[in-house]
Amino acid sequence: MHLSPSSPIGIFDSGVGGLTVARAVMERLPHENIIYFGDTARVPYGVKSSDTVARFARQIAAFLLAKQVKMLIIACNTMAAVAFDAVRDLSPVPVLEVIDAGARTAVSRTKNHRIGIIATPSTIASGAYLAAIQRHDANGMFLVTQACPLFVPLVEEGWLDHPVTRLTAFEYLTPLLAQNIDTLVLGCTHYPLLKPLLGSVLGSGVQLVDSAEAISLRVEAMLEEMNLKNPAGSEPEHVFHVTDVPQRFQEIGERFLGRALGDVRVESL
Amino acid sequence: MHLSPSSPIGIFDSGVGGLTVARAVMERLPHENIIYFGDTARVPYGVKSSDTVARFARQIAAFLLAKQVKMLIIACNTMAAVAFDAVRDLSPVPVLEVIDAGARTAVSRTKNHRIGIIATPSTIASGAYLAAIQRHDANGMFLVTQACPLFVPLVEEGWLDHPVTRLTAFEYLTPLLAQNIDTLVLGCTHYPLLKPLLGSVLGSGVQLVDSAEAISLRVEAMLEEMNLKNPAGSEPEHVFHVTDVPQRFQEIGERFLGRALGDVRVESL
Repeated sequence: MHLSPSSPIGIFDSGVGGLTVARAVMERLPHENIIYFGDTARVPYGVKSSDTVARFARQIAAFLLAKQVKMLIIACNTMAAVAFDAVRDLSPVPVLEVIDAGARTAVSRTKNHRIGIIATPSTIASGAYLAAIQRHDANGMFLVTQACPLFVPLVEEGWLDHPVTRLTAFEYLTPLLAQNIDTLVLGCTHYPLLKPLLGSVLGSGVQLVDSAEAISLRVEAMLEEMNLKNPAGSEPEHVFHVTDVPQRFQEIGERFLGRALGDVRVESL
Repeated sequence: MHLSPSSPIGIFDSGVGGLTVARAVMERLPHENIIYFGDTARVPYGVKSSDTVARFARQIAAFLLAKQVKMLIIACNTMAAVAFDAVRDLSPVPVLEVIDAGARTAVSRTKNHRIGIIATPSTIASGAYLAAIQRHDANGMFLVTQACPLFVPLVEEGWLDHPVTRLTAFEYLTPLLAQNIDTLVLGCTHYPLLKPLLGSVLGSGVQLVDSAEAISLRVEAMLEEMNLKNPAGSEPEHVFHVTDVPQRFQEIGERFLGRALGDVRVESL
């Protein structure tokens, strides 16, 4: 396998949520070629079993590796939580994922060592955030977690600043606030779109950690280390592969990506 | 293919929602053998494209036909809306589906000829309810539709009588009430669990049509016509096939079925 700076970065997710990660990578690394894969025919993964999620993750990783990517980014907290080892074991190129990046940032930012984590039920149940935070700081970190299964459908409905979403946020976040956290990890790639609303519910005493931003820093550092950063000059190519083009895909996808989706191709795995 | 009264009825859905249909059939026809199939690895279908839903429906129908079922019931409004023809074309046994049953009941019950329909986005977009109601009464029926994508995740979260669900119901139903409907079709198999809440939001002037009840009547009539009703005597066998056993499957499934899930088997399609 020959890797060069112009080899693409492979980014994958169960659906459109990982486009928030693609967006952060495109903003930080505007010259990189990127292949995005969203498994829109089988989304969401957050309520499926670990075995099924790992099987789907291996299929997607194999698809991207066949495109000669120089790096894989698991832009889906659920897959990162339960399928990281499965992907790393079959990949000859480095595999980065959102949970480690978010955990690392949260540990470096908290002042009172009290961190909250919100995510899908399967990400929370996996314990992956607790493990990642312990890897980066084993001592004296107080952690509190909350599964928020309704946030994904609320974001996809576009109710980003709606009374229903606000009431749901109060319901989910009140127990976290009662624990006096000063840092909250947004442990799902859909949640960055709720940042303004969550910020107003939480108040200024809690800072939000967006793992899309966190991982884009790690990607840049890793490419520099490998000497594989694509130099400025050529126009980068961004290709989006999906397994289904669902209702309102274009509208929802562009809300996540923050720009027009260009080259969208439908694949069957 | 040899069919006998003891041959099972095949009931299928994208996930657990069709268990409300299985429940209504079990209550009306307590001696029937039933094979249920829920595609829990790929649920939900309500936001996927028609082509993808039709492909999945054909796979499931083929699985059930190989089990020698005497009848197929599409217990999923989304599949009924976009994949009925695809299933009927490959099935040597009768195929019933929830949309026709619900439409028939709504037409027979409305007094002021003003009917509301709530369903997932893809069921609404398909126009299948409008077509079915026109088949049963082409003249002077006023119809108003509303897609309610948040009701499914709210039901699965178990917020059946929660302020968030109530506020969401007001948001979705207010435009229907403004149209002075007297009948509302629950066009998704998840919605019967919201009956008490929807009833209190709508008031006593609107009657709810539950297609699970409607289809169980059609199943009984069809079996009598075919002379294939299983006689009382033997203990019926109920088998549940799923493509994944997700988080909280048992709890959510039993909420829909209204009783313990006995024999659950995991299949890969």
